[in-house]
Formats: sequence, C-alpha cells, structure tokens
Amino acid sequence: MDIEKCVSSIQPLDEIWLTRAQEQLDKLAIPLGSLGRLMQLGKQYAAIRKTIKPAIRDKRIFTFAADHGVVAEGVSAFPQEVTRQMVFNFMRGGAGVNVLGRHAGATVTVVDIGVDYDFEDVDGLVKRKVARGTRNMAIESAMSRDEALQAIGVGIELAREAARQGTDLVGTGDMGIGNTTPSSAIIAVLSGCSAAEVTGRGTGIGDDALQKKVETIERALALHNPDPADPIGVLAAVGGLEIAGIAGLIIGASSEGIPVVIDGFISGAGAVVACALNPVIRQYLFAAHLSMEKGHRSMLDYMGLEPLLDLDLRLGEGTGAALGIGLVEAGAKILTEMLTFEEAGVTEGSCS
Amino acid sequence: MDIEKCVSSIQPLDEIWLTRAQEQLDKLAIPLGSLGRLMQLGKQYAAIRKTIKPAIRDKRIFTFAADHGVVAEGVSAFPQEVTRQMVFNFMRGGAGVNVLGRHAGATVTVVDIGVDYDFEDVDGLVKRKVARGTRNMAIESAMSRDEALQAIGVGIELAREAARQGTDLVGTGDMGIGNTTPSSAIIAVLSGCSAAEVTGRGTGIGDDALQKKVETIERALALHNPDPADPIGVLAAVGGLEIAGIAGLIIGASSEGIPVVIDGFISGAGAVVACALNPVIRQYLFAAHLSMEKGHRSMLDYMGLEPLLDLDLRLGEGTGAALGIGLVEAGAKILTEMLTFEEAGVTEGSCS
Repeated sequence: MDIEKCVSSIQPLDEIWLTRAQEQLDKLAIPLGSLGRLMQLGKQYAAIRKTIKPAIRDKRIFTFAADHGVVAEGVSAFPQEVTRQMVFNFMRGGAGVNVLGRHAGATVTVVDIGVDYDFEDVDGLVKRKVARGTRNMAIESAMSRDEALQAIGVGIELAREAARQGTDLVGTGDMGIGNTTPSSAIIAVLSGCSAAEVTGRGTGIGDDALQKKVETIERALALHNPDPADPIGVLAAVGGLEIAGIAGLIIGASSEGIPVVIDGFISGAGAVVACALNPVIRQYLFAAHLSMEKGHRSMLDYMGLEPLLDLDLRLGEGTGAALGIGLVEAGAKILTEMLTFEEAGVTEGSCS
Repeated sequence: MDIEKCVSSIQPLDEIWLTRAQEQLDKLAIPLGSLGRLMQLGKQYAAIRKTIKPAIRDKRIFTFAADHGVVAEGVSAFPQEVTRQMVFNFMRGGAGVNVLGRHAGATVTVVDIGVDYDFEDVDGLVKRKVARGTRNMAIESAMSRDEALQAIGVGIELAREAARQGTDLVGTGDMGIGNTTPSSAIIAVLSGCSAAEVTGRGTGIGDDALQKKVETIERALALHNPDPADPIGVLAAVGGLEIAGIAGLIIGASSEGIPVVIDGFISGAGAVVACALNPVIRQYLFAAHLSMEKGHRSMLDYMGLEPLLDLDLRLGEGTGAALGIGLVEAGAKILTEMLTFEEAGVTEGSCS
C-alpha cells in the first residue's frame, strides 16, 4: 500500500459545502446560531460528507489492542496480561466501550494489531497482528519502520473496508497496558514539550512510578533522538502498534471522506501522528473529550481541536468516542431533521 | 393540592444507596474512577432510584409554553405570536427539541400552560392553560399568587402522572417569547445579583434592546420589591407561567423519586425557584449544560450544580436537556451493563 499517496490525497473541506450547510443552518426556525457548537458539528459533518442532509446510519468504533515492551520498566499499575483479558471482556460485551458503543448505536470492532497472545477466531475480533507487542523503547526502537508502516496500513485498510460497507462515522479506541507511555513520548517529540510536561498517571500510578515513567521516556528520547519532521520515525522509535493502527484508521477514513471521532489520550497520539503527516486531516476530526491524562491538552492544541466533553474520563477503549459520536450525530440531525422558518410557518426575528 | 406538603416531603438521597452504587462502581473492570463524572451520574441516578442496577426505559421531556406581558416593553427580538407558532412546530416534530428528543429516545410532551391562543385538541399537546400569558411585570404583578400556585400544581400533577406511567427520567423545556426577562428577574432576586449582572441577549437582541431589558427588570424589581425568602411571591411578581410549571414538574418529580435533567436558562429559573422552596431538591437534578445566556452560571452556582455540557447553546425548548438525558443514561448504563473485575476475569491493578 502506498501510504504516502493516501496521506497526500486528503483534501481540505470543500468551501461550497461549508457555505451550503451554513445557509441551511441560518434558515432553521430558531434564533440565529442558538444551537451553538452543535450547529458547527453538523456543518463540519455535512461538508465532509458533501451533503446538507447527511444521514448517519452506520457508526463504528475501532478499538485497537496491542502490548508494549516498555511495561518492563514498571510504568503501569496493571500487568501486561490485562490487555488480552480486556480483549476477552470486549468480546463478551461487558466493557465500557461495549456499553457506551451500544448506547450510541455504534458497532465496536476490536482489532488485535499487536497483542502478545494468540487469539482463536472469534466473531467481532479482527486479527491483524503485526507483532506480539512492541519492544522496550527505553533500550531499543519500539518497532522497525516497516512494522510501523504495516500497522498504519492495517488502519487504512480497515477504513477502506468500512467505507465500502457504507460506514458514515468512525470512532477510535485503544487497549494496551502501558500505552500512555508511548503516547506521552510521541506528543513530547511532536510538540517540543518536556516528558514531564506531558506525562500523567495513566491507569493510576503513584508518585514513584510516575517519576520512573517520566525518566523512562526521557531515556528513550535521549536514546533515539527522534526527528519531529519524520512522524513515522517517531512512531517506530517510541510509539505503539495500536497507536499506529489508529493513525492509519484516521488517514484512511479522511481519504474516504468519513468523519472520525477521536477518543482520548492514546487516540490523540494516533491523531497527532496522522496530522503531522498531513495537517489537513484535522478537518476530518472531532475531538470527543478532554481526557484527565496530563498531556492531552497539548495534543488537542497541536491539532487545533476543541474537545466536546470534559467529564474527567481517562479510560480509553473508545468510551469517550462513543459519547462524542452521540453529539456529532445530534449535530448532523439538526441539519437533516429540523424545519426552517418558512417550512414551519414561524415569523423571523428582527435581531435589532 | 397541598404544594407545601409536597415540597417538604422531599428527602435527601439515601446514603445507603449512594454507598452501594459507589461499591459497585469500584468493582468495575477499569482503573478506579476512570470513567470520571459519568460514574457520578450513574451513582446519583442509582441513589434517586434506590437500585444499583437502574434501567431507564421511559424518558420524557416536558416543554412548557406560555406568553409574557412584558414583551410590550420590547424585550425580545421576536413577536409574541412566535410562541404559538413554535407550539405548532413542536406538534409537527420539526423543532430542535423534537429532533434531539428523538435522538435521545425521549418523548416530548408540550404543555400549554399559558399561551395567548386557543389551541384545538391535538395529540401530544397537553392543555393546562392557567392564564393567557402573564401581565406586564413592569407595571403590575405578572401573576396573582394563586395563578403561580396553580401553574406549579400543573407541573406537580404532570410529574405524578409520569410516575404512574413508569417514567424513569424527566427533562425540562420551555417556549415563551420574552421568557429570559422573568428568568433574569428571578435569579436577580434570589441571588442578590443586579439585573445587569444576570441579563443577557435572549434570542439575540442588540445593545439598545438589552439596555431596555435591564431597565425593565430594574423597574419591575423596584415596583414589586419581591422578598427572596418568599419564592412563590417572587414567581408571582416577576415570573412566568412556564417557569412555574417547570418548578412544579421538578418538585413533583423529586417527590416521586424521578431524576430530572434541567435544560438551560428558563428551566434554570424554574429549578432555582424549586430549590429555594427546598434545597434538597438539587440532589435530584442534573444540569444538562451551561447556557450562553448571561446569568445562567449564577443560577447553577445558586443550586451548586455543575453543567455536563458547554456547547454555547441558548435555544431552550429542552434541547440541552435532551443531550443531557443521553449522558445521564450513559452513566446509569455503566452501573447496569458493565462487568466487574471478577465477572470479566480481569486482573486488578496495584495502584502503587
């Protein structure tokens, strides 16, 4: 797959559709602009879909699962086997993303892109393992450049499949014990912030483990000295397979004209890599929420995105994306279902 | 109806159910507390319903419509007939609250509690007119004390009907050209803020009209000098029939143990009156969003509520409540549908 070609094919949103959507919004039988950001969501969604009456039928959350060699450094409160245990929980439908996905009417597709475990064939689990987890970034490169590209390719392929199957809206999600560490490392490199500025408590580590986590990232950055101008290189050196998969999904969806609702910190790392490859991609993204995880604001600032929700979430999985999907869909329905002043026979205001 | 008895019957949430819900949340197979405020929504909802596995089947938004004599002072950008025109739009299902209500799976019940128009009998319109609008508060009392009590009684009755029919969650909404003016007047009296501090642009008035609006409220407050210790008196002097209906709905729902999602500024005025009568009522409320309307923050502060959303909404109707219902339901589902560490076979973290 020619990833570079896919990345560079992504075009800015069409001004014509932005204008048409705004004109329709301005005609609705409400005080001008009084549905606030909901209207902006509808407008952006409509412009991506190139229609002012966008119907959202098929919504899918992709939850990419992978393991991380860096857990050997003691950066997580949970042991590595929890990654595969949670994949089984996803399959049973009992995890947060299953519950909130169902609530949003979205299908949850779990992708094994790098779990250190051999899953049987199960319905709902997409097996696209690139490697059995990353290597420990503190002592060697997390992935080879080829592995990083392969994992991005998996995400792009999944987006293309979804497009063929008529998916209207995509959400991102992650599962991977240890994956806040590569996410912090990535945003540190791309934003120029120090590791300490963008490293948080992840699943809930204490002060000592946090200190160790920051030092681990500092050691990895000193070892690899990743070049911010080479996002694939950054991903390979200090990233994760699920982060690469998320970046690929975002690239693929944008190139197919499918809007993407990004979840929190790990999804943010994937989105930041995608936007570093082509800044136009941000126009296809909706930031579901502001994560509690320190460093997430830096990611959103890097992309110039404002989060829709601020509910102190820090779970990942795609849980925040599920909530965001509900809001984006609400914005689209404003355009599709609301009547105009003329249609509703309502007298317009004077706005004086 | 003995409103006072109903108001004083409302009890604080049962500590036992708050504790049980928290214990269940702490067992879920996620890092402790990592679903943030969503978990608090679930906990509060569960405690109101007295169950740790709350099922939300029937959701209803009540949109109270009424007219306002104070529009004679030029306080709105829209003419008074828009109130009844919007009621017709609600009946056709083409307004914002219809669209977002459907999106949330909530029924929208429109209540004519004081529109200056005689509606035919139509399906979905509840006719409980107390008066054909309020009188102009700038020159006389908006309502008699008896009218205010009648309108509160309508809200209480509707909540009791909803309880009998098995409603699990109630949302509030309003329609009434001119109704930001009484809402500002009410919060000015109850919070002690000046009219200027809590008066905004409503449907979108310009600087001159805003100045006139502030002066109108100042004039009304000087004329009636309402006693903040007498919330019914405040409501009668400078309130509105839909605001009284909303206050009644909130009182009735709380007394029946039905959680209430309050919409924006007008619903906030109703909620503030209810909480002034019995501060315990705030424990039954979820504030859907922070309205763009100046003065809404003062209302939320008065009640000690934090809004769930901040999307620059300022439409009313119950549109924000519809979005809030989606979030409260998500919080309840966390408790009802998610598996615990034990159930899911996931290893617990060390949190060290």
